[in-house]
Amino acid sequence: MDEEGFIEYLRARFPTQGSVLGIGDDCAVIPFGEGKAALVTTDALVEGVHFLKEEISPHDLGYKTVAVSVSDIAAMGGDPKYAFFSIAIAKTIKREWVHQMMEGMRAACSQWNIALLGGDTVGSKRDLFLNLTLIGVAPLEQVKYRHDARPGDVICVSAPLGDSGGGLKGLQESRALTGDMEVLLRAHFHPQPAVEQGRWLARQPGVHAMMDLSDGLACDLPRLLKSSRLGGRIEVSKIPLSMPLQRLSAMYGWDPLELAVAAGEDYSLLVTVDPQRAAVIQHDFAQQFGSPLYDIGVVTDPPIQLIYLKQGSEITLRSLPFDHFQSIF
Amino acid sequence: MDEEGFIEYLRARFPTQGSVLGIGDDCAVIPFGEGKAALVTTDALVEGVHFLKEEISPHDLGYKTVAVSVSDIAAMGGDPKYAFFSIAIAKTIKREWVHQMMEGMRAACSQWNIALLGGDTVGSKRDLFLNLTLIGVAPLEQVKYRHDARPGDVICVSAPLGDSGGGLKGLQESRALTGDMEVLLRAHFHPQPAVEQGRWLARQPGVHAMMDLSDGLACDLPRLLKSSRLGGRIEVSKIPLSMPLQRLSAMYGWDPLELAVAAGEDYSLLVTVDPQRAAVIQHDFAQQFGSPLYDIGVVTDPPIQLIYLKQGSEITLRSLPFDHFQSIF
Repeated sequence: MDEEGFIEYLRARFPTQGSVLGIGDDCAVIPFGEGKAALVTTDALVEGVHFLKEEISPHDLGYKTVAVSVSDIAAMGGDPKYAFFSIAIAKTIKREWVHQMMEGMRAACSQWNIALLGGDTVGSKRDLFLNLTLIGVAPLEQVKYRHDARPGDVICVSAPLGDSGGGLKGLQESRALTGDMEVLLRAHFHPQPAVEQGRWLARQPGVHAMMDLSDGLACDLPRLLKSSRLGGRIEVSKIPLSMPLQRLSAMYGWDPLELAVAAGEDYSLLVTVDPQRAAVIQHDFAQQFGSPLYDIGVVTDPPIQLIYLKQGSEITLRSLPFDHFQSIF
Repeated sequence: MDEEGFIEYLRARFPTQGSVLGIGDDCAVIPFGEGKAALVTTDALVEGVHFLKEEISPHDLGYKTVAVSVSDIAAMGGDPKYAFFSIAIAKTIKREWVHQMMEGMRAACSQWNIALLGGDTVGSKRDLFLNLTLIGVAPLEQVKYRHDARPGDVICVSAPLGDSGGGLKGLQESRALTGDMEVLLRAHFHPQPAVEQGRWLARQPGVHAMMDLSDGLACDLPRLLKSSRLGGRIEVSKIPLSMPLQRLSAMYGWDPLELAVAAGEDYSLLVTVDPQRAAVIQHDFAQQFGSPLYDIGVVTDPPIQLIYLKQGSEITLRSLPFDHFQSIF
């Protein structure tokens, strides 16, 4: 049972109270009075499955553990506030390694003004296991969900895609540590979730659905469309690619589009915008953040159909490694 | 580093915002307006460390995972509300086992009206890990902490102690499954946290400090006293023991007092009460719940001293298996 299967299982078996929203979104949404909502996300990481202790520094691991959850809060327009951290750890792991990981968490908590309020530390026989629960706050009326896309909406992303996947690929292929490669590696190990962008977008009239791109466009866009019971058309030539990714892809024969669409872990925002408001929002976004809000396609009706276009002609993407995607469509 | 060491480490390194309370208590306390507070607790469980898959049924494991966290909320006078559950699971574990565990969680969530709002399911190479974050709600002014004991307070417990430890001992010694043994086993595998009692006690003027007895009186009372910077005297002959525990202890040569003081996992409440109010509160508690609030000792000044008495004479308890206890005093 994968994460989505588990969530569907929970949804069927644990009927929630009417006041709670966001099941299946990046966070659960709990209204708590005074027009505000708590956004809650939980993520578990297991050594050997989500990370290899030999390939990520403990500082980066701690930082990224927080950043990934911050991105879930950002994806719904919230402000991250309180963290609860559990770690199950074998005796063979050095104290200095744990200390460095906690320093990475501290750096991330400090960057986003998050109070680490509690946690649990337990022994493990072998594997290292981390769990982070992060609580954020947002005005209830401004919380953005996956299910609010509307036919005709412009589909936008908040940053170029594929850098994180390029960093991982460069690492796997032991490529030289050039300036360009450092940019991609930093995207992979030190992701910068779009907290300010998420809160700003959540305040704009005409912004409808929102989520973060943790698993890649090919996986996450179908989730958003399925949740909204709609379809979509993506013009792949409009998917933004960074200059470092373009240069390294040319040098090493990578398909940058494949990395942008399928590799995941970019932690930028995927958002659908009223077509009447898109131009203004894109203009103001660029003014506010000094970088574009990229439009890459359109939400369509009838539902359960996602078409990729290249210069207007329908294409099939070469590689879609996520099972999720195949199973949804 | 044990749990307390980890919490002290966090406290030193992650300075929290002034508005947040309860660090080092059973829950973190987050005021959220309208005079209310969220109580948040996180617990991690690891196979082979906290439980043996061969010794606890998956249904009991799921139930107990929730019940233990409910007890943390009860310990501060709160009402459990929302749960977030992560599980890391190896492929070798049967789907039916997971299903039964989730059914146990469902039974517990249903019993205490808890909405399971989210979670994460991830693969594990070998070990099974569980993590539960539980959020409760309480009136901020009524939240009870460990640090509020006052000199002269009467020390009380909300139920007889040692049943859970007796159940575990009977299991380890493969004792016959009599009616008495079933009572103890049920206390061990199916604990009933004192939610109603906790909320009732939190509302009574004169109730000062409160916590739950998850690790046993010999471990938990020193935590409460240390947090309040006070000492205490316990009259061990007043520690309540159930009839089943007394009968089985006589039959098998167990020391019921050792089980009551040191075995832990009873999940009843430890509370300190203004001596002027104690008689009234004890009377009303018995009226309300049909069972006594047992007074077992008194809070003393000077601090950092805990004395056990037997019929008024100072004694040393034979067995204090918790390292915590030794290190605090």
